[in-house]
Amino acid sequence: MREPERIPGEVSTRKLSGLEQQLARSLPIVVSTPPDFSFRGSHEQGAARRGELVTPHGAVETPAFMPVATQGTIKGLSMDEVAGAGGRMVLSNAYHLYLRPGDMMVRALGGLHAFARWDGPMLTDSGGFQVFSLAKLRTVSEGGVVFRSHLDGSMHEYSPEAVMRIERNLGADVIMQLDELIAGQSALAASRGAMERSLRWLERCRAEFDRIERDGRAPLGLTMTDAVLPAGLPSLVPADPDAERVAPPQALFPIVQGGTHAELRRASVAGILGGGNWRGIAIGGLSVGESKADMYAMLEVCEAVIPRSLPRYLMGVGFPDDLVEGVRRGIDLFDCVAPTRMGRDGTAFTPDGKVQIRKGSHRTDRRPLVEGCGCPCCTRYDRAYVRHLFVAEEMLGLRLLALHNLTFLLDTMRDARAALRGGSFDGWSDSWLARYRAGGR
Amino acid sequence: MREPERIPGEVSTRKLSGLEQQLARSLPIVVSTPPDFSFRGSHEQGAARRGELVTPHGAVETPAFMPVATQGTIKGLSMDEVAGAGGRMVLSNAYHLYLRPGDMMVRALGGLHAFARWDGPMLTDSGGFQVFSLAKLRTVSEGGVVFRSHLDGSMHEYSPEAVMRIERNLGADVIMQLDELIAGQSALAASRGAMERSLRWLERCRAEFDRIERDGRAPLGLTMTDAVLPAGLPSLVPADPDAERVAPPQALFPIVQGGTHAELRRASVAGILGGGNWRGIAIGGLSVGESKADMYAMLEVCEAVIPRSLPRYLMGVGFPDDLVEGVRRGIDLFDCVAPTRMGRDGTAFTPDGKVQIRKGSHRTDRRPLVEGCGCPCCTRYDRAYVRHLFVAEEMLGLRLLALHNLTFLLDTMRDARAALRGGSFDGWSDSWLARYRAGGR
Repeated sequence: MREPERIPGEVSTRKLSGLEQQLARSLPIVVSTPPDFSFRGSHEQGAARRGELVTPHGAVETPAFMPVATQGTIKGLSMDEVAGAGGRMVLSNAYHLYLRPGDMMVRALGGLHAFARWDGPMLTDSGGFQVFSLAKLRTVSEGGVVFRSHLDGSMHEYSPEAVMRIERNLGADVIMQLDELIAGQSALAASRGAMERSLRWLERCRAEFDRIERDGRAPLGLTMTDAVLPAGLPSLVPADPDAERVAPPQALFPIVQGGTHAELRRASVAGILGGGNWRGIAIGGLSVGESKADMYAMLEVCEAVIPRSLPRYLMGVGFPDDLVEGVRRGIDLFDCVAPTRMGRDGTAFTPDGKVQIRKGSHRTDRRPLVEGCGCPCCTRYDRAYVRHLFVAEEMLGLRLLALHNLTFLLDTMRDARAALRGGSFDGWSDSWLARYRAGGR
Repeated sequence: MREPERIPGEVSTRKLSGLEQQLARSLPIVVSTPPDFSFRGSHEQGAARRGELVTPHGAVETPAFMPVATQGTIKGLSMDEVAGAGGRMVLSNAYHLYLRPGDMMVRALGGLHAFARWDGPMLTDSGGFQVFSLAKLRTVSEGGVVFRSHLDGSMHEYSPEAVMRIERNLGADVIMQLDELIAGQSALAASRGAMERSLRWLERCRAEFDRIERDGRAPLGLTMTDAVLPAGLPSLVPADPDAERVAPPQALFPIVQGGTHAELRRASVAGILGGGNWRGIAIGGLSVGESKADMYAMLEVCEAVIPRSLPRYLMGVGFPDDLVEGVRRGIDLFDCVAPTRMGRDGTAFTPDGKVQIRKGSHRTDRRPLVEGCGCPCCTRYDRAYVRHLFVAEEMLGLRLLALHNLTFLLDTMRDARAALRGGSFDGWSDSWLARYRAGGR
């Protein structure tokens, strides 16, 4: 499942392919080393490891699942509930916040941490995925993506530079590059083109990231000043405009692309490693329609060539078995809307697979959803009542299942960390997966 | 605003009209005196008074607002949040629970308190209002209402006797009679007909209530037994079937009808008082389209003839100013879906009237919704963020405003009780209403 043991921090010594060498040379080595970030792995078992990611807003024990607050809120839940369930790092989305309420507005209101009331570690995705999946009439060129908003039809340009300005305004601890997304299981040529463009966009992201570090952010626009505030409102003009322009300490994560083509994935990693002194690396373009076997194979390909000193973030993957399989393949961070989206749909994660709470067999079932689960749904309510809430289309049902599913993923990662610490991860993950798959649909 | 002071418990000595005398004679005096119920008023100021309503599930300080858990859940909120906001007695709806999941099912699952996880005082409305407003193809006769379910088109009969069996199965502390509802502002003849029928239905409710007290509830049906439970589920067969059939201690409340016709309201009260030894009395058929002046006038009419020993419950009225005006007119209990329904719509109650949170002027407003309010919305978030949640159609927005509005009504009643205790209610309510109306729309 992984290459022979390497010293943490050491770059793989595997011989580079021609494409990899070409890409590794095409990007200059830079020294963007944001302060306040570190990652330390420990307790390795195979490719899996425990770890600690330190950010300016605190530390996260890994492997960790990051709840998704797409629009600055986790659907149906409060941040207090998310923290109570064990969430330590959350993710938000630059595309959505750029369109509404606007990244400058979020910055004027104190930044994303203050706006969303989350004082812990936070990551923003660039929103590249949303531009490609939600926006209308998009035109992709080397410059970036021109698209029509899915909200009001207005036209926007999403370039690597624009995305950096947006994510610098939002102020999350970890920010993602803009990458080019293509349909899952695309052929080699298309996958290679998008992967190489993503590398070029990474370089432009890095350059703009560093420029903002040096020059500061643009001044807050006139629309944020007292001139246009309704009478009686507190001022949004910063007390110290110069200090406010200084970009917060942030780490830019590159994204490995290459579809389901092993050689492209390896080339993407080589290109990324040649292009900067990164604090972490993400694997994108998976869980987009390919088979689970293909996804796991790509994780193994990437794991073999990504330095173990870097935290690895698998984007958009969050079904329980994929998390455990990901940890086995060296993944440290995950995010996905699955727990809240499945919860809204009435589907609950359990150690014995997924359960659809609307099923008639729950009508008289006074047992909790999951015996021993500490979430409010399982400690306070029985299946009969939760089913009633769903059948009666009551909002509390959505809340309870979303919180349960989130708790289930966070608990699973907590148990994985404990197993790693105790040296029993291989056995733990074998039996966890066997039980989950025996009961699942 | 009220008749001269009377000794609590003493029935009004005002001379009865012919209609009142006729109705008072038509119903036999009975001695249905459920245990575990009491009401004690104190600190009277004009018609207003503090009080304490004791039920088998605890005491409620009055005047009190009862949050509405129509289908066994308060829309968008958890019972913990409702209790945290100061809710002490909640209301549920027999019509909705009869149709889904079924009153027998609720009883088999431990009764409504256990089902909905509310261990405090609880009231069920008969659902008469819902039969008249939601059900399809209804036929009203002296026997009751035959209607088609708004859910699945099935046919049902809602008679006074059936409603008592349903509410006895659900097991709330206070249960309401079935009454006949007609359009607001109906003419005298129609209002009189419905009021008189409601009195006849009250007598049938009382007789069936007493019969169930004596004979016990019907045995749990076959559909609740192990014979039809999916394998592996815990049994729903009661450990002691005989004890389970004993009806819980409950109080049946009659409902005053009569539209906006003072003489009908007085006759309705006389008929009710002649028909039983009630533990409380409700005023129905208001807030259904008539002017506020008409509603307040009817409260004064009823207040003058209802013994002060009885707690008075004004049904379906829950806008902030109506609560304060109601307390001034001797009302002790209120319920309404307004706080949660308005909250879902983006409308917030404030001491300065209603506020629509979607308004553009809140876009940059970092102040809490209500300065000094202790609810989670006001202590944790600013208007700019809550507006964002509504504009972005995020569920957390609905939750926060529903909880704020509920807190606002509960706080208003708490402040009213404090003013009554302190002897300053008249001045407090004058200035409260003046401020609310000066800012309101």
